[in-house]
Amino acid sequence: MNFASDNWAGAHPAICEALSAHAHGFHEAYGQGELDRKVERLFCEIFERDVAIFFVATGTAANSLSMTLLNRPGGVVFAHQQAHMREDEGGAPEYLTGGARVHGVSGPLGRIDPAALEAAIRLYPAEFIHAGQPMAVSITQSNEIGGVYSLEEIEAIAGICRAHDLPLHMDGARFANALVSLGTTPAEMTWKRGVDIVSFGATKNGCWCAEAIVVMDPARARDMPFLRKRAAHLFSKSRFIAAQFEAYFRDDLWLRNARHANAMAASLAAHISKAATARLAWQPQANEVFAILREETAAALRERGAFFYPWNAPAGLQLARGEGLYRFVTSFATTVEEVEVFGAMLDR
Amino acid sequence: MNFASDNWAGAHPAICEALSAHAHGFHEAYGQGELDRKVERLFCEIFERDVAIFFVATGTAANSLSMTLLNRPGGVVFAHQQAHMREDEGGAPEYLTGGARVHGVSGPLGRIDPAALEAAIRLYPAEFIHAGQPMAVSITQSNEIGGVYSLEEIEAIAGICRAHDLPLHMDGARFANALVSLGTTPAEMTWKRGVDIVSFGATKNGCWCAEAIVVMDPARARDMPFLRKRAAHLFSKSRFIAAQFEAYFRDDLWLRNARHANAMAASLAAHISKAATARLAWQPQANEVFAILREETAAALRERGAFFYPWNAPAGLQLARGEGLYRFVTSFATTVEEVEVFGAMLDR
Amino acid sequence: MNFASDNWAGAHPAICEALSAHAHGFHEAYGQGELDRKVERLFCEIFERDVAIFFVATGTAANSLSMTLLNRPGGVVFAHQQAHMREDEGGAPEYLTGGARVHGVSGPLGRIDPAALEAAIRLYPAEFIHAGQPMAVSITQSNEIGGVYSLEEIEAIAGICRAHDLPLHMDGARFANALVSLGTTPAEMTWKRGVDIVSFGATKNGCWCAEAIVVMDPARARDMPFLRKRAAHLFSKSRFIAAQFEAYFRDDLWLRNARHANAMAASLAAHISKAATARLAWQPQANEVFAILREETAAALRERGAFFYPWNAPAGLQLARGEGLYRFVTSFATTVEEVEVFGAMLDR
Amino acid sequence: MNFASDNWAGAHPAICEALSAHAHGFHEAYGQGELDRKVERLFCEIFERDVAIFFVATGTAANSLSMTLLNRPGGVVFAHQQAHMREDEGGAPEYLTGGARVHGVSGPLGRIDPAALEAAIRLYPAEFIHAGQPMAVSITQSNEIGGVYSLEEIEAIAGICRAHDLPLHMDGARFANALVSLGTTPAEMTWKRGVDIVSFGATKNGCWCAEAIVVMDPARARDMPFLRKRAAHLFSKSRFIAAQFEAYFRDDLWLRNARHANAMAASLAAHISKAATARLAWQPQANEVFAILREETAAALRERGAFFYPWNAPAGLQLARGEGLYRFVTSFATTVEEVEVFGAMLDR
Repeated sequence: MNFASDNWAGAHPAICEALSAHAHGFHEAYGQGELDRKVERLFCEIFERDVAIFFVATGTAANSLSMTLLNRPGGVVFAHQQAHMREDEGGAPEYLTGGARVHGVSGPLGRIDPAALEAAIRLYPAEFIHAGQPMAVSITQSNEIGGVYSLEEIEAIAGICRAHDLPLHMDGARFANALVSLGTTPAEMTWKRGVDIVSFGATKNGCWCAEAIVVMDPARARDMPFLRKRAAHLFSKSRFIAAQFEAYFRDDLWLRNARHANAMAASLAAHISKAATARLAWQPQANEVFAILREETAAALRERGAFFYPWNAPAGLQLARGEGLYRFVTSFATTVEEVEVFGAMLDR
Repeated sequence: MNFASDNWAGAHPAICEALSAHAHGFHEAYGQGELDRKVERLFCEIFERDVAIFFVATGTAANSLSMTLLNRPGGVVFAHQQAHMREDEGGAPEYLTGGARVHGVSGPLGRIDPAALEAAIRLYPAEFIHAGQPMAVSITQSNEIGGVYSLEEIEAIAGICRAHDLPLHMDGARFANALVSLGTTPAEMTWKRGVDIVSFGATKNGCWCAEAIVVMDPARARDMPFLRKRAAHLFSKSRFIAAQFEAYFRDDLWLRNARHANAMAASLAAHISKAATARLAWQPQANEVFAILREETAAALRERGAFFYPWNAPAGLQLARGEGLYRFVTSFATTVEEVEVFGAMLDR
Repeated sequence: MNFASDNWAGAHPAICEALSAHAHGFHEAYGQGELDRKVERLFCEIFERDVAIFFVATGTAANSLSMTLLNRPGGVVFAHQQAHMREDEGGAPEYLTGGARVHGVSGPLGRIDPAALEAAIRLYPAEFIHAGQPMAVSITQSNEIGGVYSLEEIEAIAGICRAHDLPLHMDGARFANALVSLGTTPAEMTWKRGVDIVSFGATKNGCWCAEAIVVMDPARARDMPFLRKRAAHLFSKSRFIAAQFEAYFRDDLWLRNARHANAMAASLAAHISKAATARLAWQPQANEVFAILREETAAALRERGAFFYPWNAPAGLQLARGEGLYRFVTSFATTVEEVEVFGAMLDR
Repeated sequence: MNFASDNWAGAHPAICEALSAHAHGFHEAYGQGELDRKVERLFCEIFERDVAIFFVATGTAANSLSMTLLNRPGGVVFAHQQAHMREDEGGAPEYLTGGARVHGVSGPLGRIDPAALEAAIRLYPAEFIHAGQPMAVSITQSNEIGGVYSLEEIEAIAGICRAHDLPLHMDGARFANALVSLGTTPAEMTWKRGVDIVSFGATKNGCWCAEAIVVMDPARARDMPFLRKRAAHLFSKSRFIAAQFEAYFRDDLWLRNARHANAMAASLAAHISKAATARLAWQPQANEVFAILREETAAALRERGAFFYPWNAPAGLQLARGEGLYRFVTSFATTVEEVEVFGAMLDR
């Protein structure tokens, strides 16, 4: 019963097979091989338009290099206060951009509140050199606490971006989980709603290491090959990333993995809702469940073999004395049995 | 007959098997798992001392983050004029260090000439703020044109470093090829001769993607976890890098692969030496062979299926009109048959 | 009646005379001349200890290079939400440090609240690589909205710094105004209370351009000459900065200028307190006065020749509809007459 | 007899007077005042076109921020091997650009050889991500060893720039000295010959501190206000820089100062040419004279009160054993008497 994180899981068997299948022979290095090209075309099909694709080593690199592409001198990107870029990337966005600021914006359930975004942007008036220059907005889909923006919510954020002439970035470390949660298409969830650039993550959803930056307008991506190389993120044997993506997209593996993870989260949430010893902090929309447990309950569950992390309570969440907030993450590797056993433990 | 580069090769079957074998189960992310720890101990055994190990995504990252660790304000690193850091890293060392300079030093066969190094360091007097501050020396072993420093040559460079209180870095993208060429041990080729930090590459020698920074004195590596994270080079599913290294070191796979690649290069060189239509530019010491061919010969070889790259002639190499310099790289994946067929083609 | 800013004033006659007096003859460039050395000794006398002094071009440079000296990878400095470093330096601290974060901390009247500081530091646990590393705390004395930390308040902040092993920086763009407001000595207001490094500003208090970084422990300043040069802030004809400081300190000009500015602010505040058409937002402690005026009152005052800026109301300040917050800054160049005339206008 | 450097001189009396004359009253800060605007118009007149002007604190800042404006990811600027940007700026161009490379190009007398430039640019093929991207060429006028490019030579360099679509920068720390040496106009020496951006220095020619970046096409300068602010180079009391420039341009003070300095250099060179104990290293074209002296002669001259620096001999210059190369710099402050006395000393 390991609910620590979706990056504690390994790789899906189909991904492993793909890697082995492509291990032989000589292929052009540095992303110039046939398989790289084929996967680029797959991305174009999936997004229903010509997009530019750049593999990088980590989700943090995808976010940070997206920001580097969009940055201006004194640049400021607006992201949710609890966004991965603000809380979990060890200064990478600031460093790789050469000093951009990640301005935290509030909003419920990890989703930026449009009014708060508008107010934040106004702190940095256009052409006012003393205060910094807005350069992008970044939303996380699905986000760090299991929330998912609806298509209308994305559109509302995109409208503010357009009004201020700002590009809109989507941190899609859990892109697939959001996609199946909404039951929509990649095109609908991104460029048709005004998203310009996506950090497209596959690692958490069953790959070893497969992260890509997807730029909706390839003309805008002109500098990206140089930015990636300069950040030391251009793989020589790039085919091994391509091979993972090929398998990821084949027969909808990515969607099946995400649906499974989300279903496991929903089942876990149902157990928690019913349990006398726990309550849901909020309704999960993807593959992350947050529960409020008494500390002794949490300790007892761990003793019996469940693994999960405590979490800082966001502003506004009321905890009683002796209670804590805990995160449970599911993935393609979570089994029905694990969830059932855990549910039974909760009920005891 | 593909002699384009050792990074055009795929992965050795033992590496593939290792990846699949470690694909299951939940393991701590971000380099904190048991397998990561085990591989760290393997490195310590191999280097016969406690070392600090940091996996990164590319050889360029290993070099650039090594430089970032060693850098000072206005810092200058001294590397051979043809070093990978100077010619093939797209500005990554300069960028990731925040503006260090890579000062090119001359020397025969890709090896720094000690007198030229001494003269170069003297261009930047200690404590003279206008000129920059020496911060490191970097040597490549084996180097970009197939040369290998002897242990005495490493010691000579290290002596200059000590005299100027400069750390010595080794770009070991082809560490194994140099090691078996010299018939020595990792300890002898590095810290016993004064090397402080190594970019230890395994990708070119049969892995998918396995690069590590090896810091000989762990106390000196204190900042490296933060530097790596900040550069977005900390893998979440780090175990997949660890698994490659574990397989790489098991049963001396790394040494066997390197010996094979070097033997193929020696055989290729022997063919070229004997051929009427070609001559060796210089004697190879590892897995890269440089030949002088008439341009029409090169074209004919390519037409018959051989793949190899033209190369800029280093200063001092005399070419006749109509001749060009060409590079042939061998690897674990090069077969005896390929070399024989190519040799036969040369003789026709 | 110009209350726009203390940097709209020119230079005190004594400063002009000093510049002319030192215009002749040949002197060593780049801060190595006799006058530079003499001014360094003056700083040591004033601070009652050996300090290291570095002239730079702007207060923003003093702050940003102080942060650069103190920075660590993934570094975070804690400053008040309304601090100049956060609101008015166009990204310079982030850029010159290579990507440090300036984390805003709340607190009344521009002064950091110790409990809020403690909580903010705890967001970045030591050695936790994902979240950034605390590297410094910065307080502004006197601050952006006219507040002054008492010596006890400085000590309280310094205690938190010591507990977390963090250096304490003071943005002293208006150092003299705070000093005379407290009636204390530079030593008491800084190192005796735990301050490690000061941006010592003289420009706003009667100089043309005279800013210095004061490092209390010269051993800590080892890298600063290189950092300053690398940021292009080393003046060639450094004597012209030194000459200003020499005149600034002679016969307590700096204290007299500051006392005058503060007295003018107090007088202005007294007028505002008594006026029917205005009220004080809070009691000024140095040379900046904040008043709440009806918008039509503000417009009328401007029409009659008064110049002053509107200001964003800090959280917690209650304004009635039609009211605005306005800032009035006094300086050595503010005259008693100006204040009286303005006071009379208020009363009409 | 001080020939150490033109930045050892102080300020011309007219500059001092201008500073005092503008010391009174309140004026808009940060370069928005009337005097700033007036000086901008003066620059437009002098350059015979609309130009964009940015004051900065040092010549190093002017060069480095020019490079920052022009930089691309992995950017490379080509400058003479002995250029100030390469030898005397402590890493500022590399640092402020975020890691650009300054590639040294050879050429006689401090002037870039066009063929060598062409060859250097070809080391970095367009769109080849591994090698870096050419982003600018920089020439120094007059240069570090007293040479001046003829208008035809500038045009030849500019032609190469156009062929490679590279902007051309001129380091004009001694712009006026070159201008009067050629007897031409600012327009002819810059944009009419293909120069796009100039570091326009006045400090060495009689100001305290007056350096400006001149961008020939203001549309290209869009980011510069933000770049300057971000580098902490925006003066608050900007009028004091403007006042110096106003006086500098009034009644051709700048040209008179430069003519005087050049004449003093010519006179010095004539003395050296005739002296039995010295010989000219090469013919000076501006205000720097290089002489070859026996070391004992140099020591004797210093003992008798002459001050001058030894200099590293450029490649190709033949020195006999016991001889050294020495630099003598003249300025507006050099007197006829000094030169005569020194000449007489030489003849003894």
